Amino acid sequence: MSKKIHDLTTPCFLVDREKLQVNTTRMLDTCKGLGVTLRPHTKTHKTVEFAELSTGGIKQGITVSTLVEAEMYADAGFDDILFAYPITKDKIERCTKLMCRLSQFHVMVSDLSGVECLKANIDKLPAGKTWSVAIEIDCGYGRTGFVPISDDFLQAARDVQKSMKLLSLYTHCGGSYYIFTKDERESHHQKTVAQLKEARNIILKEFPDAKFIIGVGSTPSCSQPSKVHQQVEEFHPGNYIFNDYEQYLLNACCQKDIACRVMTKVVAHKEEKNMLIVDCGFLALENDGISQRPDDFCLIEGESNLKMVGMTQELGKIKAKEGELNCQNYPVGTILYIYPFHSCATAAMHGVYYVHSGDEVVQTVKPCRGW
Amino acid sequence: MSKKIHDLTTPCFLVDREKLQVNTTRMLDTCKGLGVTLRPHTKTHKTVEFAELSTGGIKQGITVSTLVEAEMYADAGFDDILFAYPITKDKIERCTKLMCRLSQFHVMVSDLSGVECLKANIDKLPAGKTWSVAIEIDCGYGRTGFVPISDDFLQAARDVQKSMKLLSLYTHCGGSYYIFTKDERESHHQKTVAQLKEARNIILKEFPDAKFIIGVGSTPSCSQPSKVHQQVEEFHPGNYIFNDYEQYLLNACCQKDIACRVMTKVVAHKEEKNMLIVDCGFLALENDGISQRPDDFCLIEGESNLKMVGMTQELGKIKAKEGELNCQNYPVGTILYIYPFHSCATAAMHGVYYVHSGDEVVQTVKPCRGW
Repeated sequence: MSKKIHDLTTPCFLVDREKLQVNTTRMLDTCKGLGVTLRPHTKTHKTVEFAELSTGGIKQGITVSTLVEAEMYADAGFDDILFAYPITKDKIERCTKLMCRLSQFHVMVSDLSGVECLKANIDKLPAGKTWSVAIEIDCGYGRTGFVPISDDFLQAARDVQKSMKLLSLYTHCGGSYYIFTKDERESHHQKTVAQLKEARNIILKEFPDAKFIIGVGSTPSCSQPSKVHQQVEEFHPGNYIFNDYEQYLLNACCQKDIACRVMTKVVAHKEEKNMLIVDCGFLALENDGISQRPDDFCLIEGESNLKMVGMTQELGKIKAKEGELNCQNYPVGTILYIYPFHSCATAAMHGVYYVHSGDEVVQTVKPCRGW
Repeated sequence: MSKKIHDLTTPCFLVDREKLQVNTTRMLDTCKGLGVTLRPHTKTHKTVEFAELSTGGIKQGITVSTLVEAEMYADAGFDDILFAYPITKDKIERCTKLMCRLSQFHVMVSDLSGVECLKANIDKLPAGKTWSVAIEIDCGYGRTGFVPISDDFLQAARDVQKSMKLLSLYTHCGGSYYIFTKDERESHHQKTVAQLKEARNIILKEFPDAKFIIGVGSTPSCSQPSKVHQQVEEFHPGNYIFNDYEQYLLNACCQKDIACRVMTKVVAHKEEKNMLIVDCGFLALENDGISQRPDDFCLIEGESNLKMVGMTQELGKIKAKEGELNCQNYPVGTILYIYPFHSCATAAMHGVYYVHSGDEVVQTVKPCRGW
């Protein structure tokens, strides 16, 4: 029996099937055009169905942020999975199991402790197997990863080269979230790729026969690539599958490319404050947006004069941007659609995603959670 | 086989059994001392086990924020449940079922639309039953509820009195989250209770035989009550069961009363920034704290010179408050315990809570989620 989105319990997380298709196809095409392999990051959605879509149906070559994701994908027949997270001792046992189950499972080192950890656990692997390792490079974001020209990086590269298999030099490109102009973005691309190439050359100088790739991530970068990206071998963005208000602000997508929305209802009027109360609190939308952009943390579809001004656990407050809102224009029961600021964070608040085509719910998809 | 908390996968949500016991017993005792009934709010934890504890084992008289909670508690043998959320048409069917299953199920109206909705659906109830209604009063918080002296309030009271059963005048006391001094708190208590009594008198003037109660909520209020609270009949706080850094800042608890922590591990060093990277990103801690208090949004147990300075999805960044942190003092693998700013928000990020006594995990508890 067909179900309409209007029949769903609010709040709920909607995913537009056609937009999802457009976003995934576009990124596959972008990569094809550049001659770059796409290893999509699944942290945004954490579902089998969308990962299959984002790999163009081949279920090979993905990036994950948790071992729960990796295990779910292994169960679902995916292979060639990169666990792009600093490796630590407590995760070795589960990684070893994944190494045995999959033909290709890769781990990441972000500092020398990760390299030491892998070295100390090579004997845990089945005979003939060794760790396949991405070395994380910090191209200026300043969170995790090796500074490319550093003793630590050289040490890591040597250690991996000596007793393991070097898969790639991997960078998140998190700095791309702070760039708003085209010129600055081009310059950021150039600098990032130059740093990766420099890091590569440091390794090749010492190990001329080393075979590994360099790859960049982040949706703002990969959605607005430039020619310089022909010099890398891999893209690993995640957010582009949904996009969100943040990507829109960064020019990484148009509003029509935002494939996910929170559907909410007006549940009460606060007349004396000219304010609508909706059933979209922070348990439905998440607070990442409000923490970064307190005055403008989401978009309400088709309502250019409405803004969400605050949230508590289960309630959102909506006022007019200009003038006073007349509550009577939005009777209790009115449905509103909210484009989240950060879709990865918003999706994580929902145990089910409703995929729809137009008004019709065509699929329900369940993400994995936890660690 | 006994399991130690150190053997758990990080990040995870720990609940200290003894502190939980202290917090629940203290609130029961506070209410007993004042002659007030406790109707604990379950939105903080959403578990059967902790609700049983907070009702002193009787499984009667609770407050919930979602119908999923109400249904879970009904399944678990709880009764006398107040769904403290603005009632709307889309929820009538599920509420009707709960009315049939339970001997006492109560709904809430926050504006006239809620009253109209209930009136229009009285015939949906079984013969001889009518809606049992809490009228939400806005004592100055400004989110939802009736201003006590208003035409709308009088209209609501008349309508409920005429064809339904008035359970209570209910206020959240959300304003208590903005009060830091004892004098201001006392004044807030006085004002709140005065407003509720005034609202009660408005009803009693017209309906002298009306039987209903007045009740106040919020952990900052109920954890620091005063004599004036002897004039109300009900408390309905929720957060006190865990407490958190925010309650500590509001003097509503001591640090030792915070019963929940996120256990996290150092997963990498960012040496050149004198920064530790831990596996507690916003999917483990939530962003409500950082949105309200960006420079000081959690407490790291026993580490008075460490502070969390930022989070991404799966990673937290920790630096020294004063001087430069020497990463070598916190080797990768070091476990840290984080007291969250807002435990309701943090708990909601976890599919399981690990209850421990000392170092031993004594129970795993699973909350409900969704709407």
